[in-house]
Amino acid sequence: MSNVLYYAPGAASFLVHWLLIETGLPHELRLVDTASKAQKSPEYLALNPNGVVPTLVLDGKPQYEAAALAMLLAERHPQTGLAPAADDPRRADYLQWMFNLANMVQPLFRQWWYPHEPAGEAQAEAVRSHCAARIEAQWDRIDAHLAAHGPYLLGEAVSVADFYLVMLMRWSRNMPRPATEWPQLAQLAQRLKARPSFAQLYQREGLTEWA
Amino acid sequence: MSNVLYYAPGAASFLVHWLLIETGLPHELRLVDTASKAQKSPEYLALNPNGVVPTLVLDGKPQYEAAALAMLLAERHPQTGLAPAADDPRRADYLQWMFNLANMVQPLFRQWWYPHEPAGEAQAEAVRSHCAARIEAQWDRIDAHLAAHGPYLLGEAVSVADFYLVMLMRWSRNMPRPATEWPQLAQLAQRLKARPSFAQLYQREGLTEWA
Repeated sequence: MSNVLYYAPGAASFLVHWLLIETGLPHELRLVDTASKAQKSPEYLALNPNGVVPTLVLDGKPQYEAAALAMLLAERHPQTGLAPAADDPRRADYLQWMFNLANMVQPLFRQWWYPHEPAGEAQAEAVRSHCAARIEAQWDRIDAHLAAHGPYLLGEAVSVADFYLVMLMRWSRNMPRPATEWPQLAQLAQRLKARPSFAQLYQREGLTEWA
Repeated sequence: MSNVLYYAPGAASFLVHWLLIETGLPHELRLVDTASKAQKSPEYLALNPNGVVPTLVLDGKPQYEAAALAMLLAERHPQTGLAPAADDPRRADYLQWMFNLANMVQPLFRQWWYPHEPAGEAQAEAVRSHCAARIEAQWDRIDAHLAAHGPYLLGEAVSVADFYLVMLMRWSRNMPRPATEWPQLAQLAQRLKARPSFAQLYQREGLTEWA
């Protein structure tokens, strides 16, 4: 059965799209027009009640949550070596970093992009500066980890967690202090951007910024 | 080597503690005095640079992120049947729900508890009402899922994702509309609370509310 990725350029679907390319799983792409709020349409909500991208229709069944899908794709393609298996000594760290990014880093970007949400338009600037400081504290923490235990989040070898981190880093590109100002993070991004899959992803999503 | 859980009663460590009891893994408990901010002490930060509970020292190595640790414990004890393995048809849903709770539900509670954070004390009430509405929308969505595909998140059998959800539901107990006002969610909580592990967890953490 066919696999279909519902995506918007540069959104959280970026991670799933990247892993689809890395794993070589055949798939089609469907652009979701977020400018017209197509992700809130009844048709899309029937696929994904969260009303966000991505949705990946996998073997005919719609699934969501970018980090979960990236893990799933990688573990279904063990030849990629991107997902430490249950008996791998890096397994605890792998799960830890995936959830750390999902629970402590990614939600801050939601606040960064929708700063009027918590307390209205008048507070948007206050929310943004608070949020920028908290995101910077995350880069501090992760950069220190990479300096001590890198060059990748799990040490010597790349994993899905690095792809996830680099997507989140990309989201900071227009912030007062983009993640690439942190030296270890900048090196990690360089390594990931040097993969042929990155150029292909950019070309397919029509992206240019942060190339 | 010994396993040690750093916990605070009813905090995110609750999920890890519950899974330690369910899996029967031998462990010790260390209470972290969050009232005196012990989780921000240099000693604790050396274990967990996020400065939050839980930390689980597992085979001598400190690990964090409650959802990751719960998954890890369950997959290391497959006899519990709580973690659908990589070849299980429920695998995609399992990962999806774990990340959905970590990324879309749990972060809202951080805002609920620290409403002054985004824009200062004067906006705390505004942040709280915004936040309550968003949490209620999550219960709507999850209750509808359970009505259609329950009684558990993955269907007929309980998984780690249900333990995680019930911990988050517990956190809403003093909100204007606690999660138990939603009928499917209330039934799920009843099922999980009927497990002998729940009474043991409450006794060990000295909890009484929401018993």
